[in-house]
Amino acid sequence: MALFKKIAIIGAGLIGSSLARAIRANDIADKLTLIDMSEDVCKKAVELSLADEITDDAAQGVISADLVVLATPVGTFEEIAKQIGPSLLPGAILTDVGSVKETVFKQLEKHIPPSVIVLPSHPIAGTEHSGPEAGFAELFVDRWCIVTPKPDADLRAIERLTSFWEACGMRIELMDAAHHDLVLGITSHLPHLLAYTIVGTAADLEDDVKTEVIKYSASGFRGFTRIAASDPVMWRDVFLHNKDAVLEILQRFTEDLTALQKSIRRGDGFYLQEVFSRGREIRRHIERLGPEGYPSPQQMNKSDD
Amino acid sequence: MALFKKIAIIGAGLIGSSLARAIRANDIADKLTLIDMSEDVCKKAVELSLADEITDDAAQGVISADLVVLATPVGTFEEIAKQIGPSLLPGAILTDVGSVKETVFKQLEKHIPPSVIVLPSHPIAGTEHSGPEAGFAELFVDRWCIVTPKPDADLRAIERLTSFWEACGMRIELMDAAHHDLVLGITSHLPHLLAYTIVGTAADLEDDVKTEVIKYSASGFRGFTRIAASDPVMWRDVFLHNKDAVLEILQRFTEDLTALQKSIRRGDGFYLQEVFSRGREIRRHIERLGPEGYPSPQQMNKSDD
Repeated sequence: MALFKKIAIIGAGLIGSSLARAIRANDIADKLTLIDMSEDVCKKAVELSLADEITDDAAQGVISADLVVLATPVGTFEEIAKQIGPSLLPGAILTDVGSVKETVFKQLEKHIPPSVIVLPSHPIAGTEHSGPEAGFAELFVDRWCIVTPKPDADLRAIERLTSFWEACGMRIELMDAAHHDLVLGITSHLPHLLAYTIVGTAADLEDDVKTEVIKYSASGFRGFTRIAASDPVMWRDVFLHNKDAVLEILQRFTEDLTALQKSIRRGDGFYLQEVFSRGREIRRHIERLGPEGYPSPQQMNKSDD
Repeated sequence: MALFKKIAIIGAGLIGSSLARAIRANDIADKLTLIDMSEDVCKKAVELSLADEITDDAAQGVISADLVVLATPVGTFEEIAKQIGPSLLPGAILTDVGSVKETVFKQLEKHIPPSVIVLPSHPIAGTEHSGPEAGFAELFVDRWCIVTPKPDADLRAIERLTSFWEACGMRIELMDAAHHDLVLGITSHLPHLLAYTIVGTAADLEDDVKTEVIKYSASGFRGFTRIAASDPVMWRDVFLHNKDAVLEILQRFTEDLTALQKSIRRGDGFYLQEVFSRGREIRRHIERLGPEGYPSPQQMNKSDD
């Protein structure tokens, strides 16, 4: 028996279409509905046979779904909640895949009937590509999924939702929503903001220099351009909705950058070397955890390293 | 017949030891001397049999070499020039692998006899690892090497030096030294400075948050930590010696970051989306050039893309 009778995914981009593929590959739902406001995206989703039903009508598409997943930019959540609220099945779980949790869910919950169980999730998985063609079923395998239930959330619903993400291949972590937004602010939102900024700074260079910057990008710049190729609308919404945490972290970052700038201007090699030496320590911790953020079985066997 | 009778490399770290391996793998010299000030590094180099002669005496080691390569942090160049200047063979080529060119060579040339041909190079290749064990012969293959001769430099010597780098597998580009420092300032030095800064900002977080930042680093932070694991002394010297270009670029970057910060604070989604949309364009150019910064044969065949 499948975990859910009917799952409705709203948004058929990279994450939504990958989730549709993962649900089918792992037989997680008896019926799968994929909803997208864009006619072009719906057409693509039909061509790719991503779901049993594909529609641009969200209110209609969520009817009788026992799991609804929002996979659109977080700035759309409130409007979608207004549209689907009245059609949601009592007892259904409403979750999402967004990179910001606290403010977004405060807006969204106003429009969701109390009979629906709202449980925010953040599967930490993605690529710099967008659209239904960019998705693949294995996107979630061995990645972390952070679930941020309220303290009074229904435990059986949490268990059902975590089983869903586990069935997609993910590892689960429960976290307070505000804390999630702070942690992701530094691991994800600030890196993206810096990458977008440096690529913008490069784009403003004179044409001949810009050509050379592109040519010699292997020396460090290239990795930033990969991050800065991420979906602009999704990231616009992240910064608009995680404003407080991002501004707080950006403030700390700017202070640290200003201190380095000053030491470069003054020729203070001791300070530079001291700051630069800390990088290796953090990297060592990260390498010990492995690319997915937890020790691999081999690494656990030699945990005395 | 080998390209050079004797090559002396000063510095047996990642680049110097990789170069030693490449020289041997490609039969580029009749004799190879590897020089390092550190006794430990010399011992390692002996264990790894990296050269015909391994010594900590630079003045002695460069005698009769027709190519001398400086592969130490750029801050050491002037002192090394003082030590080796009197021992250098007339007609020898003196080059380097440093990431800064203009100021460094002004300092160095004061101590080099005019009979020696000074030709700065910058092989754009490396990893975040350091030391003689980290090196490998293929490090330079299909990478760019920027050579920055003065306008009046000896053309036959330039040709000999470019043949050397080509024999290591590199592609050559000639460039003005000051222009090199500006281009590398944005493609390499600024990305490293930002990576060191964000990792430092993360290191200052409370312990529990820091643990989570490490755990969820896959969401963007991880790539920065790889760059920030690069050799602290080498990078200290880069920033001390490319001060003007780095401060100029940092100024532009900070202005752009401040504009984004302001638009986050004001909730100006139009501005954010506009800036973020530029990232994809630059990335497209870089992907078209391929990871090494030039089109692969397959890509050239479909250059009408």
